[in-house]
Amino acid sequence: MENFVFEYPTKVYFGKGAVKSYLSSELKKYGETVMLAYGGGSVKRNGVYSEVLSVLGECGKKVVEFSGIMPNPTYAKVQEGAALAREYNVGLILAVGGGSVIDCCKIVALQANFSGDVWEEEIEKHSFPAAAPIPLGAIVTVSGTGSEMNGGGVITNEDKKIKTGLFAAAPRFSILDPEYTMSVPFPQVMSGTFDTLSHAMETYFGYPNEDNVSDDIGEAVMRSVIRNMRVLLKDRNNYTARSNLMWDSAMAENGVLKIGKKTDFEVHMMEHQLGAYTDCNHGMGLAVLHPVYYRHIVREGLPKFVRFAKNVWEIPAEGKTDVQLALAGIDALAAFIKECGLPSHLTELKMKDSPEKLLTDRALEEIAYSTTILPGSYKRMTGSEIYEIFKECM
Amino acid sequence: MENFVFEYPTKVYFGKGAVKSYLSSELKKYGETVMLAYGGGSVKRNGVYSEVLSVLGECGKKVVEFSGIMPNPTYAKVQEGAALAREYNVGLILAVGGGSVIDCCKIVALQANFSGDVWEEEIEKHSFPAAAPIPLGAIVTVSGTGSEMNGGGVITNEDKKIKTGLFAAAPRFSILDPEYTMSVPFPQVMSGTFDTLSHAMETYFGYPNEDNVSDDIGEAVMRSVIRNMRVLLKDRNNYTARSNLMWDSAMAENGVLKIGKKTDFEVHMMEHQLGAYTDCNHGMGLAVLHPVYYRHIVREGLPKFVRFAKNVWEIPAEGKTDVQLALAGIDALAAFIKECGLPSHLTELKMKDSPEKLLTDRALEEIAYSTTILPGSYKRMTGSEIYEIFKECM
Repeated sequence: MENFVFEYPTKVYFGKGAVKSYLSSELKKYGETVMLAYGGGSVKRNGVYSEVLSVLGECGKKVVEFSGIMPNPTYAKVQEGAALAREYNVGLILAVGGGSVIDCCKIVALQANFSGDVWEEEIEKHSFPAAAPIPLGAIVTVSGTGSEMNGGGVITNEDKKIKTGLFAAAPRFSILDPEYTMSVPFPQVMSGTFDTLSHAMETYFGYPNEDNVSDDIGEAVMRSVIRNMRVLLKDRNNYTARSNLMWDSAMAENGVLKIGKKTDFEVHMMEHQLGAYTDCNHGMGLAVLHPVYYRHIVREGLPKFVRFAKNVWEIPAEGKTDVQLALAGIDALAAFIKECGLPSHLTELKMKDSPEKLLTDRALEEIAYSTTILPGSYKRMTGSEIYEIFKECM
Repeated sequence: MENFVFEYPTKVYFGKGAVKSYLSSELKKYGETVMLAYGGGSVKRNGVYSEVLSVLGECGKKVVEFSGIMPNPTYAKVQEGAALAREYNVGLILAVGGGSVIDCCKIVALQANFSGDVWEEEIEKHSFPAAAPIPLGAIVTVSGTGSEMNGGGVITNEDKKIKTGLFAAAPRFSILDPEYTMSVPFPQVMSGTFDTLSHAMETYFGYPNEDNVSDDIGEAVMRSVIRNMRVLLKDRNNYTARSNLMWDSAMAENGVLKIGKKTDFEVHMMEHQLGAYTDCNHGMGLAVLHPVYYRHIVREGLPKFVRFAKNVWEIPAEGKTDVQLALAGIDALAAFIKECGLPSHLTELKMKDSPEKLLTDRALEEIAYSTTILPGSYKRMTGSEIYEIFKECM
């Protein structure tokens, strides 16, 4: 894919060398103090940190560092960042990393300017904090979450044992250089990319079922992800595949696929609780859950699963009943997960805590409750069916 | 498709009843005088005019009318609108109609605030006018041009005999109610919709040829357009089909399909000159030109034409050479054009002037020149090849 500049809710600068070409023009729009936010230090090893710091220096910015943002970022980390942003009267937060860093910074940006507590306001009072967030820019080093073009941030509240989406503002701009993704460990590239496929599927497998061009576009994104993940299996640093996958990540979760749709997102809700209890890798948790969950809802969503088998996996319909064809599509997804080196069982994953801990009434009710706010699902999940799904995932 | 609200460069309000639901909230953002712009009066017959006027009244707006915007809007009409907008110090231009009305108003909005001449600045000096356009909102009654979500306006300069794209700002908001399209004469619905298909094809058949998710999304939009045009042939007022086609129109020309692409747009360039000389209906001129032009470039763009035959028209590859398969795809396009009641020859069209008048050196050179600014084309057109194409179209 060629380099491009494209305006959306977020202005996207995409392509090789985009930080050098565009960051300084964006920095000029904001105040003199920039909060440079990143994760565990990989941005220092791969050179991105020094590249960004050098542009910040050339633009005469004062830099406040906010580092150590973890995968599955915690609400405590959000509060730490918000306090720092307030203390230094930050004019721009620059999130350098993947979805965890960007998600965390979105909520930091809102919490810093909100006198109340964001979690309490959004999750408990079901209200939106009356505050204008600090402007946010993102420099993406690993893609998949789609955080680069939307306003959601997934945060883990360790005290409450809940991992869920909070909402703030989308980044004002995001810089996406596919070359940056080449320094990311390969299993993380594949698990991040599976998150993209998951987003497209979560939206596709949901009501309404009437003819909708968004479903056609969803199939296009899914086929692109599958084809380009297969390219990476043979040629890890193929730039064309890396760039397609980076743009697929943004397209899968920037709202285009959701137009006219209600969406499912049940697998994300289950994985979020898994993450809250075990600190499980997000994409790997999704990879385990998707085929198992889909076998539970295949009859309720039969026409869409038939279409998925034919249009995404190109499985011939001849000689198969609709149920056989639908199940063959789910089997193709499960086989692809294995082909990509992603897990099929939770026991294959290294986790901080046993997933068995999740199988409590409270955790299951939390997930079952989430269904009530997701009106697009083909089948309303009960706590006991979620229990069965997790048992089958072990 | 369900109703939706979606922010892009343009904020789109889409669905049944969207004017009543959303227009007043947008009007509050702008000054007290609104220029209400429309075409030949069809908006008065179908009730849209009175619906919009009633909301303007409720919001206490002063209304300046700018009417009589013709298909293939002229540069003289742009100047008339700009003078009116300046005289009344208009705070918002509200374009109610299809692509011609919206295109004209975009350039009015820019010309009103620019002390020089927009045509001279953009077309002759290749510079962009240094002026902030008056804010523009669009209420779409017939779709296809995609003008509702981009900054381009196609204007005919009658003195110079040139019809070409000028650039201003995209509408701040566009209201798309698929029910409005039901009062449009059916041949105009089909020709407008063919413009959507044309936009997707013009972008698809262009360099680079490397794997690009934008081409996958282009195929998705093309398949949606074809499928839903076929629904309308049997059931003209099918809301699902009308709504898909209305969103396809926006998606085909809002920039998403062009990401990472250089695009061709040669057929549009030829049709523009045809329109300048004959006042030909845009969509119908495109319908005549596309298959003829594609048979001229099929060998240069062979892999993409093969893909088009397989993925858009679902033609089996077995037993065919690549050239046979590619030509079968173009034949399928030509057959679809007939199926939709669209013309295959220019002689089928009612035109103000004979298309033979176009076959002058000057007109052909004008089109051949346009190729030099369209670097995505598979084959550089010469004046004599354009002459041949037009002769074959007669």
